[in-house]
Amino acid sequence: MTVVHAYAAKAPGAPLEPFTYELGPLGPDQVDIKVEYCGVCHSDLSMRNNEWGMTSYPFVPGHEAVGTIMALGSNAKGLKIGQRVGLGWNSGSCLHCRPCRNGDLNMCDTAEQTIVARHGGFADVVRCNWEWALPLPDGLDAKIAGPLFCGGITVFNPIVQLGIKPTHKVGVIGIGGLGHMALMFLSHWGCEVTAFTSSPGKEDEAKAMGAHHVVNSRDSAAMAKLAGKFDFIINTVNVSLNWNDYINALGPKGRLHMVGAVLEPMKIGAFSLIGKQRSVSGSPVGAPATMLDMLDFCALHHIAPKVEVFKMADVNAALAHLEAGKARYRIVLEA
Amino acid sequence: MTVVHAYAAKAPGAPLEPFTYELGPLGPDQVDIKVEYCGVCHSDLSMRNNEWGMTSYPFVPGHEAVGTIMALGSNAKGLKIGQRVGLGWNSGSCLHCRPCRNGDLNMCDTAEQTIVARHGGFADVVRCNWEWALPLPDGLDAKIAGPLFCGGITVFNPIVQLGIKPTHKVGVIGIGGLGHMALMFLSHWGCEVTAFTSSPGKEDEAKAMGAHHVVNSRDSAAMAKLAGKFDFIINTVNVSLNWNDYINALGPKGRLHMVGAVLEPMKIGAFSLIGKQRSVSGSPVGAPATMLDMLDFCALHHIAPKVEVFKMADVNAALAHLEAGKARYRIVLEA
Repeated sequence: MTVVHAYAAKAPGAPLEPFTYELGPLGPDQVDIKVEYCGVCHSDLSMRNNEWGMTSYPFVPGHEAVGTIMALGSNAKGLKIGQRVGLGWNSGSCLHCRPCRNGDLNMCDTAEQTIVARHGGFADVVRCNWEWALPLPDGLDAKIAGPLFCGGITVFNPIVQLGIKPTHKVGVIGIGGLGHMALMFLSHWGCEVTAFTSSPGKEDEAKAMGAHHVVNSRDSAAMAKLAGKFDFIINTVNVSLNWNDYINALGPKGRLHMVGAVLEPMKIGAFSLIGKQRSVSGSPVGAPATMLDMLDFCALHHIAPKVEVFKMADVNAALAHLEAGKARYRIVLEA
Repeated sequence: MTVVHAYAAKAPGAPLEPFTYELGPLGPDQVDIKVEYCGVCHSDLSMRNNEWGMTSYPFVPGHEAVGTIMALGSNAKGLKIGQRVGLGWNSGSCLHCRPCRNGDLNMCDTAEQTIVARHGGFADVVRCNWEWALPLPDGLDAKIAGPLFCGGITVFNPIVQLGIKPTHKVGVIGIGGLGHMALMFLSHWGCEVTAFTSSPGKEDEAKAMGAHHVVNSRDSAAMAKLAGKFDFIINTVNVSLNWNDYINALGPKGRLHMVGAVLEPMKIGAFSLIGKQRSVSGSPVGAPATMLDMLDFCALHHIAPKVEVFKMADVNAALAHLEAGKARYRIVLEA
C-alpha cells in the first residue's frame, strides 16, 4: 500500500495540517502521480470552507497538480511510468455516457472530481483515472503549468467551445488568476482585447498580458461608450456586477459568458437579448482534448501564467495570501 | 401621388378607423406593394396600445403583408411589377453598416421598421425598400403566407442562427401564433419535439402539428422528470415562467431561447449555466436570406400556418378576437 503524505483541513475553515492516508489497490483505469507542483485555486478555499455544501473532511485540496507517473493501471492508455502529466478539476469519467461519447468528458454524467469525496493534490501523491492524466508538451515549464489545469482551462474552454474568432472584439472582466490567463489566450488568439477591472493599478500589467484597452468597470460613462462593441465578454469574478451594462456593451450576436461562480441570480431582461440576438452563458472546465490543445497553444506561444511559488509545507501562508486577494496572479505549491 | 386607404388608430388603445394618406414620391430603393393579405401579430396590438413607448399616431398596423409589386424604384433589384412578395417587421436596411455587410439586415444599425414611425400593411398599399420585399416561391399559398413574415421568421430564424440539428431534442413553450409554427418547423427539421403548454386542450392539435410529446407546463412533477433532456427550448410566450425549471430541463450545451417579449427580468443563476455549458439567449426576426430559406422550406414541406381569415374591413373584430386569446392560431386580413 502507498502511504500518501498530504495536507488536510479537518473541519470547515480549519487550517491545513499534515495528514497521511493509504491509497487502496490501484484500479485498472487508474494512475498515481508523484506530485512536483500543485496550483492553488480559489475553489480550494471555497471547498475548504464548505461554501458549496459538498466537502467531506478530512479535506485535501489541490486540483492543479503536475508531476510524474509512478504507477499505471493495467488498462491505462497512452501513458508511461515517469512521464510528466497534469491533473485538473476532474479525475475520472465513465467514457460511455452520451457526453463522454461526444468527447465532453468534462460533463460526464458521473464524473469524479479531484477534490470531491476524495483526496487532492496538496500531497506527495495523487491518483486519477488515466484519461485525466494529461501529458505536458515539450517546452512547457512544469513549475507554471499547474494553474493551466483548472484556472487556465476554465477560460480557454469557452474560447474553443463557443467558436470565438480572431476577428472578434472581446472583453475580460476581472484581472486575477483566471482573467490574466484569459488576456494572454485571447490576445494570442488574435482578438482585440479589452480588460475590465476595478483596480486601476493593474492597467500596465493588463496591457503587458495582452490587453489592447483597459476600462475601469466602475466608470459608468466609459462603460456606456462601449455600447454594441463586443462579440464576447467573459466574466471571471464571483461577485455581482451590473450585468446589463455588459449586455449593453455586446454587439449583434454578442455573448456574456460566466465562468466566475456568482451565487446571486443575475437579472436579465429578455428584450436586451432579443433585439441583437445576444446570449448569456456559462461553462465549466474543459475536456481532455481541449486541455491538450491549450497546452500545445501555450507551448507554441510561450504563454505562462504569472505565478508565486510557495513550499507545500507553507500551504497555510499560501492560502492566506490568496484569501487576502494578494496573489499576483496565481499561486503554485512546490513539493 | 398614390392615395393609400388604410386603417389607423388615432390614440393608444383606440379602435382602428378608415384613414387615407398620400405616399410621397417613390425613392430609388423603394417599392410599393398592392396588399392582398396581411397577418395580424400580437405586436400590432402592443404597438396600437403604445406598450413599448415607440408608437406614433395615427398608427397603421400590419407587418405581415402579402401582395403584388405595383411600383418599382429605379434602384430596386431582383423584382418585377406584378410579382407576388411578402413584407415583414423590417422595411428598410442601409446595406452598408457592419451587420448589413454580414448579411444581418435584420440587425441593421439604422433599420426601418414597417410600423414604427411609418404606416403598415392594414391598407391597400404598403411601401418598403426592395431588399425587404421577398418573392414568394411557387407552391406557397398567398393566403397563409403573411404570418410567416413575422411570426414564422421569429421562430425559424433561431433554428438557423443557432445551428439547431435534426438530432437535437427540442422544446417549444406556448402553442399559439408563434409556437404552432415552431412545432411545424422543428418537426420537419427532423427534431424530437416536445410542446409545453398550460392548455391541456391543445394536446391533440399540438401532436397534429408535429409535437412528439406534450407536457403540461404547470405539472411540476412532469417538468422535473425532464431534467437534462433538451438541447434547445424556445419560449414563445410573453409572460414570466419559472425559467429555472426550463434551464434544469436542458442537457449539456443546452439553450433556453427567448422570442417572447417578456418584460419582467429573468432571474438566472450563473451556476445553473456553468456546470453544463448552458445558454440563455434571444433573437429578433430574421434577415432576408433566412426568410427566403424559410419560404422554400415551407413550400417543400407543405408547411402552412393555421389561419383564420377576416375581411380587412372587419379589422376591429379581428383584433378583439386576438386580444381575447381566441385566435387558432393566427389571423389574416383579406383585402
